[in-house]
Amino acid sequence: MSEQSSPAASSVLDAGFASDNVSGVSEEVMAALTAQNSGSALPYGDDAATAALQETARAHFGAQAEILPVFNGTGANVVSLQALLPRWGAAICTQAAHVNTDEGGAPERLGLKLLPQPSPDGRLTPDHVRAAAEDLDFVHAAQPLAVTLTQSTELGTLYTVDEIAAVTEEAHRLGMAVHMDGSRLSNAAAALGTTLGALTTELGVDVLSLGGTKNGAMAAEAVVAIRPEKVPGLSFIRKHSMQLASKQRYVAAQLEALFGTDLWRRNAEHANRQAQRLGDRLAQIEGVRLARPTEVNAVFPEMPPHIAQAVQDRYLAHVWETATNGSPVLRLMCSFSTEDEEIEALVRLAEDAARRA
Amino acid sequence: MSEQSSPAASSVLDAGFASDNVSGVSEEVMAALTAQNSGSALPYGDDAATAALQETARAHFGAQAEILPVFNGTGANVVSLQALLPRWGAAICTQAAHVNTDEGGAPERLGLKLLPQPSPDGRLTPDHVRAAAEDLDFVHAAQPLAVTLTQSTELGTLYTVDEIAAVTEEAHRLGMAVHMDGSRLSNAAAALGTTLGALTTELGVDVLSLGGTKNGAMAAEAVVAIRPEKVPGLSFIRKHSMQLASKQRYVAAQLEALFGTDLWRRNAEHANRQAQRLGDRLAQIEGVRLARPTEVNAVFPEMPPHIAQAVQDRYLAHVWETATNGSPVLRLMCSFSTEDEEIEALVRLAEDAARRA
Amino acid sequence: MSEQSSPAASSVLDAGFASDNVSGVSEEVMAALTAQNSGSALPYGDDAATAALQETARAHFGAQAEILPVFNGTGANVVSLQALLPRWGAAICTQAAHVNTDEGGAPERLGLKLLPQPSPDGRLTPDHVRAAAEDLDFVHAAQPLAVTLTQSTELGTLYTVDEIAAVTEEAHRLGMAVHMDGSRLSNAAAALGTTLGALTTELGVDVLSLGGTKNGAMAAEAVVAIRPEKVPGLSFIRKHSMQLASKQRYVAAQLEALFGTDLWRRNAEHANRQAQRLGDRLAQIEGVRLARPTEVNAVFPEMPPHIAQAVQDRYLAHVWETATNGSPVLRLMCSFSTEDEEIEALVRLAEDAARRA
Amino acid sequence: MSEQSSPAASSVLDAGFASDNVSGVSEEVMAALTAQNSGSALPYGDDAATAALQETARAHFGAQAEILPVFNGTGANVVSLQALLPRWGAAICTQAAHVNTDEGGAPERLGLKLLPQPSPDGRLTPDHVRAAAEDLDFVHAAQPLAVTLTQSTELGTLYTVDEIAAVTEEAHRLGMAVHMDGSRLSNAAAALGTTLGALTTELGVDVLSLGGTKNGAMAAEAVVAIRPEKVPGLSFIRKHSMQLASKQRYVAAQLEALFGTDLWRRNAEHANRQAQRLGDRLAQIEGVRLARPTEVNAVFPEMPPHIAQAVQDRYLAHVWETATNGSPVLRLMCSFSTEDEEIEALVRLAEDAARRA
Repeated sequence: MSEQSSPAASSVLDAGFASDNVSGVSEEVMAALTAQNSGSALPYGDDAATAALQETARAHFGAQAEILPVFNGTGANVVSLQALLPRWGAAICTQAAHVNTDEGGAPERLGLKLLPQPSPDGRLTPDHVRAAAEDLDFVHAAQPLAVTLTQSTELGTLYTVDEIAAVTEEAHRLGMAVHMDGSRLSNAAAALGTTLGALTTELGVDVLSLGGTKNGAMAAEAVVAIRPEKVPGLSFIRKHSMQLASKQRYVAAQLEALFGTDLWRRNAEHANRQAQRLGDRLAQIEGVRLARPTEVNAVFPEMPPHIAQAVQDRYLAHVWETATNGSPVLRLMCSFSTEDEEIEALVRLAEDAARRA
Repeated sequence: MSEQSSPAASSVLDAGFASDNVSGVSEEVMAALTAQNSGSALPYGDDAATAALQETARAHFGAQAEILPVFNGTGANVVSLQALLPRWGAAICTQAAHVNTDEGGAPERLGLKLLPQPSPDGRLTPDHVRAAAEDLDFVHAAQPLAVTLTQSTELGTLYTVDEIAAVTEEAHRLGMAVHMDGSRLSNAAAALGTTLGALTTELGVDVLSLGGTKNGAMAAEAVVAIRPEKVPGLSFIRKHSMQLASKQRYVAAQLEALFGTDLWRRNAEHANRQAQRLGDRLAQIEGVRLARPTEVNAVFPEMPPHIAQAVQDRYLAHVWETATNGSPVLRLMCSFSTEDEEIEALVRLAEDAARRA
Repeated sequence: MSEQSSPAASSVLDAGFASDNVSGVSEEVMAALTAQNSGSALPYGDDAATAALQETARAHFGAQAEILPVFNGTGANVVSLQALLPRWGAAICTQAAHVNTDEGGAPERLGLKLLPQPSPDGRLTPDHVRAAAEDLDFVHAAQPLAVTLTQSTELGTLYTVDEIAAVTEEAHRLGMAVHMDGSRLSNAAAALGTTLGALTTELGVDVLSLGGTKNGAMAAEAVVAIRPEKVPGLSFIRKHSMQLASKQRYVAAQLEALFGTDLWRRNAEHANRQAQRLGDRLAQIEGVRLARPTEVNAVFPEMPPHIAQAVQDRYLAHVWETATNGSPVLRLMCSFSTEDEEIEALVRLAEDAARRA
Repeated sequence: MSEQSSPAASSVLDAGFASDNVSGVSEEVMAALTAQNSGSALPYGDDAATAALQETARAHFGAQAEILPVFNGTGANVVSLQALLPRWGAAICTQAAHVNTDEGGAPERLGLKLLPQPSPDGRLTPDHVRAAAEDLDFVHAAQPLAVTLTQSTELGTLYTVDEIAAVTEEAHRLGMAVHMDGSRLSNAAAALGTTLGALTTELGVDVLSLGGTKNGAMAAEAVVAIRPEKVPGLSFIRKHSMQLASKQRYVAAQLEALFGTDLWRRNAEHANRQAQRLGDRLAQIEGVRLARPTEVNAVFPEMPPHIAQAVQDRYLAHVWETATNGSPVLRLMCSFSTEDEEIEALVRLAEDAARRA
């Protein structure tokens, strides 16, 4: 499940499908950064770009919403969970959750306990919430007082609107708060044809990690306090979590370029569409099938070993799992910048390998 | 000692002298970001810009040096101190140290204890180190195993080369490691006419927080492991401290634009020179004197209250302290982008106020 | 898996089989406390009782061993793991490990991440260790640098000597350290007919949480540094973990009463024998069977609901799990002080219930 | 300020005046432990001794008070502060506060920042509180949301009732909570001739660390939630702070023996009276004077070096400070068990040394 490779690899392999963070920055975002670069501005968020972003956040997430730009997704998640949980709390997540497996223990370093639940498809259910809730009021257990779910998930799957609602309702019924890791929320909303608010505010999400980087920004994510009363001290927590930018106007401007226009959706739709296209093309190759449906921007082709090998000789591509027949399943990611030619090149390479076999 | 003001203030006051982080981004840095924006690159530092920066760091800090880009100064400091200190350690600093007063308790949130020492001029001395060292091996005390000093200091003062050497020698003699908070190291090196290595590597500094943001970058600082054997686990610590950028090439490119050329020195010299000019001009006004010499890019004019008031009616300017005669001492900061006209405008305003009195 | 009940329950239910910590204190331990109570003694471990205990620990665990008394088992575990792990480390444990489920998140509050592994019988295997080891050197993951295993386990099972050796060898081969949670190590050694060292020092355990409280002490556990070079800073860590007693002679005296004589074994053998007896008697009742063999001092009778109910009407007894036929499985614990009459009374009550059905 | 000495020292020096924790345990406390040792009892506080202690606490501290026994004073302090402070909070204390200098950084390890204030006599004032309050709402600073004061202080001084009231009023006015470190509260109440409640509940203290160990217990302190609404989650915090005893009846019984009778006052009065006596006697010796008045149970004789040396050749006695004339000031502590003969022996030794000079 690594998103890292060795430096050596980078010199010889095409990184184009390795992850959606190998892409560059959207032109509109670069333009916004350039436009921002004139004159002085107060640091730490007392600037016009941040004020504009605040209005944008309210348009998406409701009149009470507050947005706090941060540097990266781990920062957004860990700031959010610190704000939602008292010192004795714990957060229910899936075993595959980014916050559990790919953040270096950042939550725990700051005193948070996670309660990882097994979930083959990366989705939490009300059953998970109820199971963890058995420890409520048990003095020997870290208290399960928050739920964190990822939309779209780390396994390339999507929650439906009803599935999210079921989790948030059960959580709230049990007195728990709800966080959403939305590092790919744009991809989810694009795939489901909904607004951002329809997947969050309208479903009872209390606080959101809103992703920008994977969708075309340079380094810009945000914590969105959808229900600010659930996250007291948020700005202080962002500060001590080392996520407060001094020249914040440049972080805000990136987010505003994405979410103050429909760029967030266009970029996400492009990424999803290209993944669909890549998956469709690959599935037509003899011996190749998709191990999972392409729900957002990740494609999981199960390939005969010689085809997979041919792909990996040229591209940085992670073996995500091994099928029951022993064939490797690769994970190929598309982004806002994936071009048709890139897809064609990869498909041709796979087709050639299939023919040679 | 705040670097923050209310949003209201930002709409009416000129922020130009409020801090050196109110400035924008150097043109060369913006150009480097634009140049970086083509094609895919491996995330998390396995990219060409990071590799180039690594060479640059070795040129400045010695062949063994390793550089890890991070997002901000608090991140650089707290990553460094975590790496230098075992769980039972504590870091000696001044009471006015940024890490003690302006980082929201970030070190403590991650389990570090600071041992703040009184120092009217913001400099640590070997005496401070010896005093704290009395607790070595005393089981009831957090162990003073690291020293952190800031060059130039939070109070606008400079350590001489000999003063730094005296602290590092005493620290090493007592078995302590040495960290330097160099968020304004460029200003210090420019003021002292030295290289960056002459203030760090050559004086026994073990790990450095190297500042870029205040000297013309957008959001780019770094931890420089000058003696990597003193900071095991540094890359893991950066990760769990939420300071690892996914599209790291854009952070590295900013630092490379500054430190891979002489831009770091040109920008710092400009800021220092403009501060000198501002101070000289103000000191010629009747009733105004400089409370402290202008050692780098901060100016501390002691002004009759009516002049100070006139300045503050127009500019965001912090009252840093009150002189024994009751007059306020303002802190005015210059940056790489402070223009002559800005200085003249402020000086004229003060002169007018002086005449009207 | 709770060991707690409501205060109300305590007034009406017999707590005798609820856990092995419902017992009082061994007479020999009380006598040792009384004997200790004369004259002044230096605090914090510079006393004769602690010195004597140090010799005792060496006799059990090898000439290099160092023992640090602490207050409770959570303290012993969390002090041990802090000492074994660098800031970026994580500890492999079972999902059912006390440190994971019953310590209120104490490890995480101090910055440690656990890597819980599924294990139906509460034992770790080399496969668990290898699986977790896949994250070694992956910068995004907390590093699996220690293994913690519990002997006897939280599920009433025992590791054989070979099973422990297999885990420690694999861990050491992979560069990980090994901690043993030995809150019931005495019961394990008694059941296996071994010395304490034969389950720890001789098998490669690096640091041990040695239990006293459940085996007859009042409040006395210890961290035993079997390989002190693996746990630098241990005494400082004990201090900041709030586990250093000022009048430590009284903690040391309790442990010396147990481990400086054969009391530890006599008490453990009694508890194990009484559990065996209780299990044998219950298994003879129509409809009752043991869901698990009685390996140490826990008995797990699967009972028809009406019998279970009758027992629970009189005794505080936890439903540990539900059998596939729907019958409850209770957990009944015996201790060093469980008397024959107590067992007979419970058995009679169950027999009566069986007859009435 | 050490309360520790080397093991070597313990074999040759009389520890009787080194601290008030070198004493043993009051006979009444030992008797209570013995009386407790019969039959089973529910663990973790669901026992009769804890219930009785709860009533006792209400009698002292008001009908709403809740008491949670813990193992030691560091535990009581750090549990209290965690409960009073949100994640972004900080606690104002004196530089000499035990929590700052003698707890190994325990607060910081759990994420708390302290804001130590200079105070030559160990007492906080409303001015200290106001000075720290300047950082309220400043996003870059850990928020000063609690005050912790020690009665009697680490420097052997006492707050008057009015002095405490002034601090708590100022703190509450500024929205801060108040904690009292009462490890020697009994000595203070005895010296001032007040009840325990008159120094705490009646003056606005929100949560109290109540000391037992130095006043005759074996290992028993408590957190008293005087205003429980200020310390939500207290029982969970005690658990994750490793301060919840399984056989809690034995901790509760110690506290009940002290505070359920007037033993707490008798023991404290004895300690104070013996200190007074020791101070009076020493002050009559040629060349000896008391550097500070004997307010509770600590005596600070300033002695010519040869007399001090004679005392230190025989007794473990800390040099607390050096007088302006260069003479050492020793700290000699009396306890509930200090006997007249012990005092006479020390005085004679000093007299002999004075004569020989």
